[in-house]
Amino acid sequence: MGLKTPEQYVESLRDGRVTYWDGERIDDLTTHPRFRQALAIAAADYDYADAGRRDARVYRAEDGSEANRIYQIPTEEDHLRRRMDFFESSSIVAQVTGVYMALLSERDAVAAINPQYAANIEAVYRHARDNDLRAAEVITDPKGDRKRRAHEQDDPDLYLRIVERNDRGIVVRGAKLHITGASLCHELVVLPGKGLKPEEADYAVAFSIPVNTPGVSIINKSFANAEHETFDAPMTARNAIPEGFVIFDDVLVPWDRVFLAGEIDLSAKLTRSLGLWERTGGLTEAAHRAEIFTGLAQLVAEQQGKERDIAILSSIAELMQFATVLRIMLEYACANYRTMPSGMIYPDVLAVNAGKFHYASNYHRIVQILQDMAGGLVITLPSVKDLQHPEAGAYMRKYLHTKQGIAVEDRMRVFNTIRDMTADSYGGWLLVTALQAGGGLNAGRIMLNRAYDIEHARAAAKKAAGIS
Amino acid sequence: MGLKTPEQYVESLRDGRVTYWDGERIDDLTTHPRFRQALAIAAADYDYADAGRRDARVYRAEDGSEANRIYQIPTEEDHLRRRMDFFESSSIVAQVTGVYMALLSERDAVAAINPQYAANIEAVYRHARDNDLRAAEVITDPKGDRKRRAHEQDDPDLYLRIVERNDRGIVVRGAKLHITGASLCHELVVLPGKGLKPEEADYAVAFSIPVNTPGVSIINKSFANAEHETFDAPMTARNAIPEGFVIFDDVLVPWDRVFLAGEIDLSAKLTRSLGLWERTGGLTEAAHRAEIFTGLAQLVAEQQGKERDIAILSSIAELMQFATVLRIMLEYACANYRTMPSGMIYPDVLAVNAGKFHYASNYHRIVQILQDMAGGLVITLPSVKDLQHPEAGAYMRKYLHTKQGIAVEDRMRVFNTIRDMTADSYGGWLLVTALQAGGGLNAGRIMLNRAYDIEHARAAAKKAAGIS
Amino acid sequence: MGLKTPEQYVESLRDGRVTYWDGERIDDLTTHPRFRQALAIAAADYDYADAGRRDARVYRAEDGSEANRIYQIPTEEDHLRRRMDFFESSSIVAQVTGVYMALLSERDAVAAINPQYAANIEAVYRHARDNDLRAAEVITDPKGDRKRRAHEQDDPDLYLRIVERNDRGIVVRGAKLHITGASLCHELVVLPGKGLKPEEADYAVAFSIPVNTPGVSIINKSFANAEHETFDAPMTARNAIPEGFVIFDDVLVPWDRVFLAGEIDLSAKLTRSLGLWERTGGLTEAAHRAEIFTGLAQLVAEQQGKERDIAILSSIAELMQFATVLRIMLEYACANYRTMPSGMIYPDVLAVNAGKFHYASNYHRIVQILQDMAGGLVITLPSVKDLQHPEAGAYMRKYLHTKQGIAVEDRMRVFNTIRDMTADSYGGWLLVTALQAGGGLNAGRIMLNRAYDIEHARAAAKKAAGIS
Amino acid sequence: MGLKTPEQYVESLRDGRVTYWDGERIDDLTTHPRFRQALAIAAADYDYADAGRRDARVYRAEDGSEANRIYQIPTEEDHLRRRMDFFESSSIVAQVTGVYMALLSERDAVAAINPQYAANIEAVYRHARDNDLRAAEVITDPKGDRKRRAHEQDDPDLYLRIVERNDRGIVVRGAKLHITGASLCHELVVLPGKGLKPEEADYAVAFSIPVNTPGVSIINKSFANAEHETFDAPMTARNAIPEGFVIFDDVLVPWDRVFLAGEIDLSAKLTRSLGLWERTGGLTEAAHRAEIFTGLAQLVAEQQGKERDIAILSSIAELMQFATVLRIMLEYACANYRTMPSGMIYPDVLAVNAGKFHYASNYHRIVQILQDMAGGLVITLPSVKDLQHPEAGAYMRKYLHTKQGIAVEDRMRVFNTIRDMTADSYGGWLLVTALQAGGGLNAGRIMLNRAYDIEHARAAAKKAAGIS
Repeated sequence: MGLKTPEQYVESLRDGRVTYWDGERIDDLTTHPRFRQALAIAAADYDYADAGRRDARVYRAEDGSEANRIYQIPTEEDHLRRRMDFFESSSIVAQVTGVYMALLSERDAVAAINPQYAANIEAVYRHARDNDLRAAEVITDPKGDRKRRAHEQDDPDLYLRIVERNDRGIVVRGAKLHITGASLCHELVVLPGKGLKPEEADYAVAFSIPVNTPGVSIINKSFANAEHETFDAPMTARNAIPEGFVIFDDVLVPWDRVFLAGEIDLSAKLTRSLGLWERTGGLTEAAHRAEIFTGLAQLVAEQQGKERDIAILSSIAELMQFATVLRIMLEYACANYRTMPSGMIYPDVLAVNAGKFHYASNYHRIVQILQDMAGGLVITLPSVKDLQHPEAGAYMRKYLHTKQGIAVEDRMRVFNTIRDMTADSYGGWLLVTALQAGGGLNAGRIMLNRAYDIEHARAAAKKAAGIS
Repeated sequence: MGLKTPEQYVESLRDGRVTYWDGERIDDLTTHPRFRQALAIAAADYDYADAGRRDARVYRAEDGSEANRIYQIPTEEDHLRRRMDFFESSSIVAQVTGVYMALLSERDAVAAINPQYAANIEAVYRHARDNDLRAAEVITDPKGDRKRRAHEQDDPDLYLRIVERNDRGIVVRGAKLHITGASLCHELVVLPGKGLKPEEADYAVAFSIPVNTPGVSIINKSFANAEHETFDAPMTARNAIPEGFVIFDDVLVPWDRVFLAGEIDLSAKLTRSLGLWERTGGLTEAAHRAEIFTGLAQLVAEQQGKERDIAILSSIAELMQFATVLRIMLEYACANYRTMPSGMIYPDVLAVNAGKFHYASNYHRIVQILQDMAGGLVITLPSVKDLQHPEAGAYMRKYLHTKQGIAVEDRMRVFNTIRDMTADSYGGWLLVTALQAGGGLNAGRIMLNRAYDIEHARAAAKKAAGIS
Repeated sequence: MGLKTPEQYVESLRDGRVTYWDGERIDDLTTHPRFRQALAIAAADYDYADAGRRDARVYRAEDGSEANRIYQIPTEEDHLRRRMDFFESSSIVAQVTGVYMALLSERDAVAAINPQYAANIEAVYRHARDNDLRAAEVITDPKGDRKRRAHEQDDPDLYLRIVERNDRGIVVRGAKLHITGASLCHELVVLPGKGLKPEEADYAVAFSIPVNTPGVSIINKSFANAEHETFDAPMTARNAIPEGFVIFDDVLVPWDRVFLAGEIDLSAKLTRSLGLWERTGGLTEAAHRAEIFTGLAQLVAEQQGKERDIAILSSIAELMQFATVLRIMLEYACANYRTMPSGMIYPDVLAVNAGKFHYASNYHRIVQILQDMAGGLVITLPSVKDLQHPEAGAYMRKYLHTKQGIAVEDRMRVFNTIRDMTADSYGGWLLVTALQAGGGLNAGRIMLNRAYDIEHARAAAKKAAGIS
Repeated sequence: MGLKTPEQYVESLRDGRVTYWDGERIDDLTTHPRFRQALAIAAADYDYADAGRRDARVYRAEDGSEANRIYQIPTEEDHLRRRMDFFESSSIVAQVTGVYMALLSERDAVAAINPQYAANIEAVYRHARDNDLRAAEVITDPKGDRKRRAHEQDDPDLYLRIVERNDRGIVVRGAKLHITGASLCHELVVLPGKGLKPEEADYAVAFSIPVNTPGVSIINKSFANAEHETFDAPMTARNAIPEGFVIFDDVLVPWDRVFLAGEIDLSAKLTRSLGLWERTGGLTEAAHRAEIFTGLAQLVAEQQGKERDIAILSSIAELMQFATVLRIMLEYACANYRTMPSGMIYPDVLAVNAGKFHYASNYHRIVQILQDMAGGLVITLPSVKDLQHPEAGAYMRKYLHTKQGIAVEDRMRVFNTIRDMTADSYGGWLLVTALQAGGGLNAGRIMLNRAYDIEHARAAAKKAAGIS
C-alpha cells in the first residue's frame, strides 16, 4: 500500500485485462511494443523520486499517509492551485483519475437516496488513493439512433444497462466510447451519460470496477503510431495515450462497488458534477497550451528576424489575448471557489464553463493565426534523421540558417512543435477534443444557460428599459 | 467649497465659456434649449440628497471633508469596486473626471523631472476635488496628414503646441478632437496624444485650465437631437452628452497650471497612464452593457414565448458568454491590483487591456446576435405617441399582444431599448466608441504586446519544444 | 393611364387613406411636413424626363405602351441586369413594387387550383402597370405568442384571417408588420407569412387592394426624423421611407382582388416566391452598398495620407473581398437564370440565397472593419452648420486640413456618409435589415438547406469515403 | 515520345536523381518502400486506358498528337472547365505541371526582353508535353533573416542565385523550399520567389532543368508514413505526395534552359503569373473539398438519425454556404475569362483571388463546424483491423450500429474520411496549405488590393457622399 514506483505500476497492469489494438488481442500489454510509448508516459507519473516533482505530485492525506495529489480533496484555494500545477506536470492518465472528486462532490446527494452507495464511494476512493491507482472516466454510450431514447433502440444495449440484479450485485451490458487511458488504468469509474426518463431506470447505473473484471474488454485507438522520433514529435512523445472503446459483456458488479442502480434523479447530477471537474482540468490544459502557442509564435518571429514586424505583432497579440482570457478565467474560478457543507471546495462553475467555452469556440481560429504566421516549413521541414545524415544534414544546416545565435536544431524544434500540436495527428486530436471534451459547442452553450445568473441580467435590462 | 448642488453646478457653467452647436454660438448654455437634455444629465450627478445615492457618490477625503467619489485615490480593493459602482450610477461627465487619477499615477515620474509640475498636479487635483468640479480628458490632436509627424505638417498647429513661453506661462495653439462633455466640464485636462521625437519638444505639453479661459472655444456634436421621448429612447435620455471639438487659439496657460512643457520622455507615459484608467472605466461600462444586452434578449424571448426555443437559448448563451468574460476580466483586474510607492493602487494592466480588447473585437458580433434574435420590430415599432392616440393606440394594443401577463408597454420598452442601444444614433455611437475609445483595434493589440508577460510564454514554449 | 409625373403621383395619394405618424392622424399626407421628405423621395422615382434616367426606368410593354421598368417580366438575361440597374437608381418604394414578379412566378400554380385567382393576378398586375402604381409587400403577421400557432392565440386576429366570405368578396381582419413604404404606395399586395396547417385555412389569404380601402389604417415609423441636413446625412436624405404597421379592420376584399382564400398548400409557395425576388433586390442593394463602403474606406485613407499603410490596406482588402463575393454571386445568379414554362426567367435560387446569407452573416463584421479604420471623427465631426458659421467654420477649416488638394468639405462628406450608413439611425436600420430582410440568419440557413444540391455533395462524399 | 504508360513513367525516374528521405539516401526510388505509396499515386495519373478517364486526361495538341490535358493551352471556356475536371481526377504531381501555363502567359513579356528566353520557354514546354513529363513548381527561397534582403544575408546563398555565367550557361547555387512532388517529377521549373531590387540582379533567375541534373539534391518530407490502411485513411492513400527541400549545389543550367538571368523587372511578373494558375488549381480543389465536407456532414447526420435536427441542419447550411461561394467564384472566373493577344485565355483574376481568399480565411472555421457536428468518434474510432478481428470486430458491429440500413463499415468510412481530412496528419497538411499555398493571408489581401477595381468603388463612394 502507499505510493507505487514506476516498476510496481507496470507490474500491476499484468492482471489479465483484455485489450485489443490494431486488430490484435494483447494479453500482456507491459511487454507489447504497441503499448511501449503509452506505458512509459503513464509510468513516468509514478516517478516521485525527485524532490521538486515529489512536492507537486504528493500530498499528505488526513490519516498522515502520503498519496498522489490527484486524490487531495480541496478545502482551500491553495489546493486548487496545486491541482492545476499537478495537471501541468502529469499525463492525462493521472488527470482522469480526478473522477473521484466528482463522486465525492455528490456524496451527500447519494447518501440521501441510499447511504450504502455513499459508503461505497468513500471506500472505493480510499482504496484507490491508498493503492495509488489510476481510474478512467467511463461516461459516453454509443447511443445508436439519436432520434430514439435508450430503451427505444434497435438493440437495447446501445446504452449501458442493468440486465440482472442478484444477491451478489448487478450484471451490466453495453459499451462506452472515448475512454481516455482505459487500458492503462486500474479502475473503470462508470457513470450515466445523460439525464434519463422513468422508463429508463435500468440505464441509471454507476459503479467502479477493476479493469480486469471478467467480461470487460477494451479496444484501443490512438492518434499516435507505435514509434515516434521525440525530436520530430515532442508533444506526441509526451501525450500519446490511447482512448478505449470499453465493452461490458454481462459484467457482474458487486454491491459494494455500486453507486447508482435505477435512481434516475441522481444520474444527471453525477454527470454534471463530473463535467465541472473535467472542464476545470481541460481549462488548466487549455490555458497552458495557449501560453505555449504564444511562446512558439514569439520564437518563430525571433528566429526569422520578424519580431518587430507589425503584422506578426498583431498575430501574436491575438494569441496573447486568447492565453490571457483563459488564464484569467481559470485564476478567477479558483479564487472564487464555493464551499460545500462537507468543507470540500470547488471552482466557480460559471467561470470554468465560460473559460472552457471560450477555448472551444476560438481554438480553430487561434490555430489558424499561429499557422498563418508560422509559414510552410511547419509541414515541409525534413526529419531530424535527415539532419543527422552527413550530406543532407549539411545542406539543411546551410539553408535553414537565419542569423547568428539561432541554432538550426532550435528552429526545427519550434516548427516541429507547431506541426505536432496543430498540423499532425496529435494536432488533429487537439482540434477535436477542444470541441468535444465535455460535449460540443451546443453542450457548452447549455452549460452557460444553466450557470449564468440570468436574474441579475434581467434586472439590469428591466432597469435600463424602465420596466418596473 | 465642498459638494455642489445641481443648481450650483448649473450656475457655475455661466462663466463666459465659448461654445458652438449646430451653427450657433451659445453664450449661456444653461438657458439654451440645445443643452437642456445634456445639462439635466450632468446636473443629476450632483444629486447627493438620497442616502443610497450619497453613499455611492460621496467619500470622505483625507482632510475629513466630503468629496465626489471620482476623486478618491484608491488604496485598497474596495475603493476600486466603489469606483466601478460609481461609474454605473453616474454620467460620462462625472466619469471622465477620473482623468486626475492618471495625473496622480505619474506624479512621481513628473516630480523627478520637475518638482513644480508635480506640485501643480496636486494643487489642481485638490482644487477640483474641493470645488466638486468636472474635468474633461483632452488628448487627441487633429493629426492632419498621417504620413507626416507633428512638425512636418502643412500647418504646424495640426498638433497642439507651445507657441510662446513667457514669465506668466506658456501660450498654446491647436485643437483637440473627440472631447467628451467638454462644454459641461469646468476644467480641461490636456495631455499629449502620443510619443514624440526630440525635434517635437514644443508638442510635449500638458496642463489643466478652466473651460472659460480666453482663447478656448468648443464646437459641440452629439448623436442625440435636442429633444427625445424618454419612452422611445430611454438610453439616449440618460447618455446624450455632446463631444467637443476644442480649439486653443493662443491660450495662455499660467505656470502653476503646467504639467509638462517640452519634456518629451514623459509625454507617452502620461498618455499611457490615462489609457489604463480610461480603459478601466470603459470595461466597467462594457461589462454592465453586456449584462443589459443579455437581459434584453431574455425579455424578448419571454415576452414572445420563445424562452425554451433552442436557437434562442443558443443566442442568449453567446450573450452570457460575452458578459461573463467581461465581468470576470474586470473583477480579476480589481482583485489583482498593483500598489505604487505612494500607496495608490491600480487595477491589473493586462486584465484591463485584455478585457477592453475582448469588448472591442466582439462588440459588433454581439450586436448582430442580439438583433438577429430580436427581429424586425426593433426598427419598425411605432412611437409611444401613436400608442397614446385613441385609434392608433387601440390597434397597437390589440396587435402587439403576445400573451397574458405581458404588457404591450413593456414589450415596447424592450424593443425601444434594443433599438436605442444598437440600431439608432446612440447605438451607432456605441459601435464606434466600442472600437475607438482608447484607439482602435490595432492600439488594443499594441497594448497587449506591451502588457503581456512574453517571457513566461517563451519559457513554456521552449520547454515544450525541448529547447534548453 | 400610362406613366405618371411626380405631380400626378403626389396628387394620386390624396385618396382618403388613413395614416398615423408620431401620434397624429394625417388626413392628407401630401401637405403634411412629416411626410415631406419621404414623399419627395418617392416622387423623384417618377421623374422620367432625363433621357438617361428614362432609359433605366422605362421599358416598352408587350402592348407597345411605356411602363415603369419594375413591371418588366424578364425573359432574357439583359432584363435581369436592367432590373438591377433600376434598383440602384430608384427608391425602395419603387423596388418593393417588384412584388408582382412573385405573383406572376406562381401564376400557373395558382391557376391549377383556381383559374379565377390566376386571372385576378394578371388583371391586377396590368392595372398597376398601366397606371404606374406602387405596391407594398404585405407579409409579416404580428404572431403573438410564438409557441402557439395562428388559431391557438389568445386573439385569433394575431395572424391576418378571413372572418367572413360573402357574395361580394371576403372580409379580412388582422394586421401586418414591417411594411416598407405602405403609406406611399397605391396597392397593398397581401400574402401569408408562412406555411399553414389544415386547421388554419382561414389564415391562407392573399389579395391586393388599394391603400384607401375602407378599414385599412397605417401607423408609420421611420428611422429618420422629419428634417435632415442633406450634407450631414446624405444617405438618409435619399432613403428615408417609413415602414407601416398596417391594420385591416374588417376590410372587404372583392372577389376579383383575391388570389388565395383558404388553399393552404399554395400559401408557402407564394411566400417563397416573393422571397426570391425580395432577396435578389436585397443582394443588388448589398453589392452596391459594399462597393460604396470599399470606396469610402479608400477615400478616408487617401484623405489622411494612409493609403499605403499596411494595416489600412489590409482592412480595405477585407472590404474588397466582401464586395467582390456579393457582386459575383449576383452576376452569377443573373447569368445562370432559369426559365419557366411561361418564358419568364428568374435568377439562380442558390446563388441569390447564398449571396444574401453572405451579406447577412458578415455585415456587422464589415461595419466593424470600416469603423475601425475610419476613426472617431465618424461620430464627433461637427455639423455643416458649424462649418458655415464664420468663427466656428474657420476653426474647422484650419484643423480638419490634412494635405494639399483635400477639401475639408470632402473629408466631412466622407465621414458623414460613413456615420449616416453605419453609426446613426439609418445605419442602425441597415444593420437590422441586413439580418432581418427575408427573415433572420436561421431563415437564411433554411433557404440554403432547401436550395443546395445535397445529392451532388453526398455523392462526392461517398466517393471520397469509398462508400458504394 | 507521346503519352507514357505507368510503367514507362516509373522507369523514367531511374535516372540517377539524388533524393533523401528520413535520413537515408535513396538511389533508386522506384524500388524503395518509402516511395512505394507516392509512386503509385503519381503513376496512376498515367493510366490512360479507361475511355472515360482518357477523355478527361488527354487532349489533341495543335500538331495532332495526343498529350496530357495539363499541357492544353486554353483558348476557350471549355478548356478551363476541362482543366478543372482534370484537377479533380489527377494527383497533385500532375497538377503542379501546370507551371508551364504561367511561363506561356508571360512569353510575350519575356520575348520583349530577350527573344531567346521566350524561345527557350516554348521549346521546354514542347519537350515536356511531347514526352508526357511532370514538372515541379520551384519558387520559395529559404530567406534566412526576414529583416534583410537577399544580398544582405549572412550567407548570400539563402536565396537561389547565379554564381557564375559562362559560355555553356549559368551556374546557380541555393535551395528552394516546399516543392511539391519534386522527387516524382522530371523537370524542375525554377522561378524567383519575389520582386527584386537592382542590386539583387543575380537573384533574378528562372530556368527549367531535369531533376537528375548534377548538383541537384532533394530531401523529402511527407505528412504520410510509409504505410497506411486505405480503409482507415482513404484520402491519405490518394494524396500522399512528399514535398521536397531542393538544393542546387553549383548546378550548371545550359543557356537553352534559361528564362531569366538578371532581369529584375520580369521576376515579379513571372511569380505573379504562376500565382494565378496555382490559385485557380487551388480553388478547384477547394470547391471540391468543400462539397465533400458538406456531403460528409450529411452522411454523419443521416447515419445517426439526426438529419432533421435543427442544430445539425444549421451546421450543414454553413458548410453548404462555404461550398457554394467557392463553386460560384470558380464558375464565374471561368465564364468571365480574359484573352491575351496570343489567344490564350485565363480565368478572371479577381474572382480567383477572392475565391482563394475566401477559402483560406474560412477553412479553419469550417473544419470546426464539421468536427463539432461529427462528434468524438472522429478520433476514437478503432481501426479496421480491429473490425476484422473476430471478437473485437463483433463488439464493434454490435455497438456501432445505429439503425436499419446503415452498415457499420460505412459509418466507419465516414468517420475515417473526416479524421483523415481534418484531424490527422493529412488534415494538418490541409489546414496549413489552405493558408500557405500562394503565401498566407496577408499575401491574399495584397492580391485583392491589386486585382480589385478600386476606381469603380471610389466613384460609387464619391457619388454616395456627394463629392464631385
